[in-house]
Amino acid sequence: MTREELIKNIKSKQSFLCVGLDSDIKKLPAHLLSEPNPIFAFNKAIIDATAPYAVAYKPNMAFYESLGAKGWTALEETVSYIQNNYPDQFIIADAKRGDIGNTSTLYARSFFEHLGVDAITVAPYMGQDSVSPFLGYDSKWVVLLALTSNKGSYDFQLTEDKNGKRLFENVIETSQQWASDKEMMYVVGATQGKMFADIRKIAPNHFLLVPGVGAQGGSLEEVAKYGMNSDCGLLVNSSRGIIYASSGTDFAEAAAREARILAGQMSELLKANGII
Amino acid sequence: MTREELIKNIKSKQSFLCVGLDSDIKKLPAHLLSEPNPIFAFNKAIIDATAPYAVAYKPNMAFYESLGAKGWTALEETVSYIQNNYPDQFIIADAKRGDIGNTSTLYARSFFEHLGVDAITVAPYMGQDSVSPFLGYDSKWVVLLALTSNKGSYDFQLTEDKNGKRLFENVIETSQQWASDKEMMYVVGATQGKMFADIRKIAPNHFLLVPGVGAQGGSLEEVAKYGMNSDCGLLVNSSRGIIYASSGTDFAEAAAREARILAGQMSELLKANGII
Repeated sequence: MTREELIKNIKSKQSFLCVGLDSDIKKLPAHLLSEPNPIFAFNKAIIDATAPYAVAYKPNMAFYESLGAKGWTALEETVSYIQNNYPDQFIIADAKRGDIGNTSTLYARSFFEHLGVDAITVAPYMGQDSVSPFLGYDSKWVVLLALTSNKGSYDFQLTEDKNGKRLFENVIETSQQWASDKEMMYVVGATQGKMFADIRKIAPNHFLLVPGVGAQGGSLEEVAKYGMNSDCGLLVNSSRGIIYASSGTDFAEAAAREARILAGQMSELLKANGII
Repeated sequence: MTREELIKNIKSKQSFLCVGLDSDIKKLPAHLLSEPNPIFAFNKAIIDATAPYAVAYKPNMAFYESLGAKGWTALEETVSYIQNNYPDQFIIADAKRGDIGNTSTLYARSFFEHLGVDAITVAPYMGQDSVSPFLGYDSKWVVLLALTSNKGSYDFQLTEDKNGKRLFENVIETSQQWASDKEMMYVVGATQGKMFADIRKIAPNHFLLVPGVGAQGGSLEEVAKYGMNSDCGLLVNSSRGIIYASSGTDFAEAAAREARILAGQMSELLKANGII
């Protein structure tokens, strides 16, 4: 999906919601466990219920890998289902990969050619040649970790260099020499508050993928206040708050309700910022 | 596997060789492609041929993931085969994972409980709470990326902070507060030469997993000169130089020959340093 298409979808749906498909076999509603493929059955119901309110889905690879070969099948089925039924949804494989060049090349093929997602999250630690194999695919995206939502983001990401530049700022500035805002986004945790303003100084146009609203405690209003740009420039992810809103047979309705509430807030924020 | 067992194996085999199972379906000898499971057939033959000369195997996840569900099955079969036939081999899943706590917990379960490997490579960018879920498993290890073998290692890993401490040094020092040398190793590329001496100043006792000998141009002699400690403290990996030594029907014999040559050099280095 191109940047223009993504912006168009956000404006027409009045939402910048990404639903995180962190689908844990141990947390599925009990009645789904008798299905031949419980994870896919769960995802399918969640997707059907939330698609009107979302512009993106983000399966986190860990939840599928933890099931071995069966998990990969569930992932493939989920991605195909979204592509066939909701082709305007942006699909992000949350994989946080990054390896030497020939290995990253294989991961890129795996995610972009085999699985066919729109974007993959990549870790920056190993530098340019670990990231560049994911670039250059038509309408595909790298979402580079910059400032994450967890407590451990303080361990290294905020370390200042001799000029006072923090590591996450170095990552954002340096990586802009590798790719434009048409094929790179950055992960910035919703818990980081005013640091969105610092990021907008060095990356005014880039889309930011923002986890951490909901279960992790980030504020949607604060993210929009400091992080929204004239194209919106945000994809805000909620996983647990939506997909586990109910553990009963009404899980899909409950997910729809939570997604609708978030999308309603997003619509207001888009209007308040003159984007729609 | 405990640290003591690993050291004992190195001494008794007179080798600190890790064979990288970067088994690429596109590079397999042609005669294997008619096998029901070509990757496993290849790995089995490589393992049988090289086990006398190696103390560890390191499957790189990218090569298995690129085949989807089939690849996971091949990986599971490979790990089981090593465990059942060569229980003294240390198995490292080269996965370079690292995510927020609940996700890292799932990865840890996946690799340590489901797959049952001894160690997993982990990326440090997201800090302590992304690494700690991999710790605390009896006789299991985290192999943390510190100073990698690729050109991109210069992009961020060598960035100096205000006190002149480089990021990889910060990673090594900080992470020693999270775990001891009985459950943490560091990745240090063979291409980094004299920087092994800097690393031994801050991590004198830790094992280092050293990729980059062979195809990537690192020197075994230099690694041993600057990196070996009184317990050896090194696992030196070779992947392509061993597993693709021949693309013919003699691939396993060729792999054995290359592994034997490397193990011979390692034996000399262990003797020269008074370890055996």
